[in-house]
Amino acid sequence: MAPRTLNEQDLEALAIGAAILGTGGGGSPYVGRLRAREQLRKGRVIKVIDLEDLDDEAQVVTVGGIGAPVIGIEKFEKGDECLRALRAIERVEGRKADALIAAEIGGANAMEPLLTAAQAGIPVVDADGMGRAFPEVQMCTYYIYGHPPAPAALADEKGNTVVLQHMKDMYWLEKIARTVAVDMGAAAGFAEKPMSGAFVKQYAVPRTITQAMRLGHVVLDARRERRNPVDAVASSERGKRVYDGKITDVRREIVAGFARGTVKLEGLDTHSGRRAQVEIQNENLILTVDGEVVAAVPDLIMLLDQDTGEPITTEVLRYGMRVAIIVMPCHPLLRTPEALAVVGPAAFGYPDVSYQPMEGDLTHA
Amino acid sequence: MAPRTLNEQDLEALAIGAAILGTGGGGSPYVGRLRAREQLRKGRVIKVIDLEDLDDEAQVVTVGGIGAPVIGIEKFEKGDECLRALRAIERVEGRKADALIAAEIGGANAMEPLLTAAQAGIPVVDADGMGRAFPEVQMCTYYIYGHPPAPAALADEKGNTVVLQHMKDMYWLEKIARTVAVDMGAAAGFAEKPMSGAFVKQYAVPRTITQAMRLGHVVLDARRERRNPVDAVASSERGKRVYDGKITDVRREIVAGFARGTVKLEGLDTHSGRRAQVEIQNENLILTVDGEVVAAVPDLIMLLDQDTGEPITTEVLRYGMRVAIIVMPCHPLLRTPEALAVVGPAAFGYPDVSYQPMEGDLTHA
Repeated sequence: MAPRTLNEQDLEALAIGAAILGTGGGGSPYVGRLRAREQLRKGRVIKVIDLEDLDDEAQVVTVGGIGAPVIGIEKFEKGDECLRALRAIERVEGRKADALIAAEIGGANAMEPLLTAAQAGIPVVDADGMGRAFPEVQMCTYYIYGHPPAPAALADEKGNTVVLQHMKDMYWLEKIARTVAVDMGAAAGFAEKPMSGAFVKQYAVPRTITQAMRLGHVVLDARRERRNPVDAVASSERGKRVYDGKITDVRREIVAGFARGTVKLEGLDTHSGRRAQVEIQNENLILTVDGEVVAAVPDLIMLLDQDTGEPITTEVLRYGMRVAIIVMPCHPLLRTPEALAVVGPAAFGYPDVSYQPMEGDLTHA
Repeated sequence: MAPRTLNEQDLEALAIGAAILGTGGGGSPYVGRLRAREQLRKGRVIKVIDLEDLDDEAQVVTVGGIGAPVIGIEKFEKGDECLRALRAIERVEGRKADALIAAEIGGANAMEPLLTAAQAGIPVVDADGMGRAFPEVQMCTYYIYGHPPAPAALADEKGNTVVLQHMKDMYWLEKIARTVAVDMGAAAGFAEKPMSGAFVKQYAVPRTITQAMRLGHVVLDARRERRNPVDAVASSERGKRVYDGKITDVRREIVAGFARGTVKLEGLDTHSGRRAQVEIQNENLILTVDGEVVAAVPDLIMLLDQDTGEPITTEVLRYGMRVAIIVMPCHPLLRTPEALAVVGPAAFGYPDVSYQPMEGDLTHA
């Protein structure tokens, strides 16, 4: 099948869906959506290619922004950081990229590959490496399933470009990339070692651009029909609305470039009298209700505004907000022992929380 | 003239002279001396080439360690960090290095190019970029006189290599190289963009390996003859012994990877009753006696043990030490307006100290 092209409405839906799949983190896709739209208005084309149409030999490069999401909403990028990081990788590898792919469909990094691809004139693969958002580079199916951690490149809006030429492992990649990004002003364009089409077909979380757009359309349809979209969002992706409540307490701090914290809630409506707590580290990680773990990473925990269905990111959480909490099953690629070692509760510092997969898994039909 | 080869006695003298020219900083050359000696004992050759024998088209690469000197005395490198950084630069440039050169003759970085050159089988140029030690990468005649700040490469003992591909200016080079080095465990091998032989002839501080060895021999001779070497050290390089005193107070802290502080002294012997103060930032920067500035960067301020003539580095300064303070004129390349903007007192945060060059300049005959 020929690559599809995205229009402005697709970008709007994608930005909404990506924010929902951000599970509280990943940064806002809003600015990226406007920048992608600007590409379209300049006459550039945003093409999306299906996994099955990807050539096994194709060079697929992951691009995205790297930094701290709390900074992400304040600092506007100049606009070609990811393209310059991509060019640095192409130069090191001595070969042009055939397609781009997102590391994470959740949040701002759903949009970055699209606008970089428009600039570079190549398509984006309908897939990503998380099926959601995670705070660290190595928490990506590509690295979990053996993609080498180097070379990778960072570029900032001032004209600095850094190539991480050899990295001992994916943890060193995360560590050094993160501090270089903080040095660059806490936001930089990031491009990673090219993957083969064959590898991407096997290990990328499939059809997540389509999924994010579907979620966005569910929200847009509900708004148009003046319905509350919360239940529609949940049912669209085999999720469940597990709790409604009011935020009573938000503790949040920035530690080593990450927003970490705890949110406490008091039940509303049918959940009246029940207390919930969400642990966050950029994303929503663990949900407990009355002390019982209801959901945990890598399954998806979303806080939506109870009235409008807008996803609430961890940086805007505040006292008094009324939220509905939805949980969705993650993709099976995130539930293997190899994956849980990197993205399970223990990997985030909760060794006492054992991961109980929620029933079903995300469909991407 | 054919390159000279260094023997174990040369290395011993060089290490002593380099420590003196470290003006309190630059890290200890001791471990580097042992590692260079090991190269000789393995049958490798350390060759030193004169500036005038360098081909104008030669590719000359600066290599050295980068990190915080207080860490430098505790953390032993694996031994080929600089070589791996060099190889990364050669790969990026697509051309082998013809010779290596030191960024700073003062301290540990006098030895690093020698042992890396022995590993690589190429000579070291008898010159450096400071004629002493300075705390930051950009405080080097190469950058002061227009050498581009990128590419540069860092490598650590764990197998990580980072290439700084494009840097906006030499301050960004310093900033990003320094944090990557701290990430790598506060010590890494560093290699910089190749310079042409013609550029090095014009802008390197000449004959500083020879100078350091001469200083070392002055000390060794005095020790052999059971003389105090302090006066001989001063007169060898047109320096002056300006103060003798006892340390009464040391304030020192590590700020952003740098050892900063102030040392106070009470006069001894002919200086009895006079108080002195030395401002340090890795190196000794400003010497005041009874509130008057006696010497300031870029001129050299050395604290030597009053009895043994051993140079005292800023990391081992402590209460009660009896020291002689020697000052020496810096090379004219460090006294131009361009140079003083980077290595004068104001550049180190002392805008009220005006640089009064001490008479004469370092001879390198």
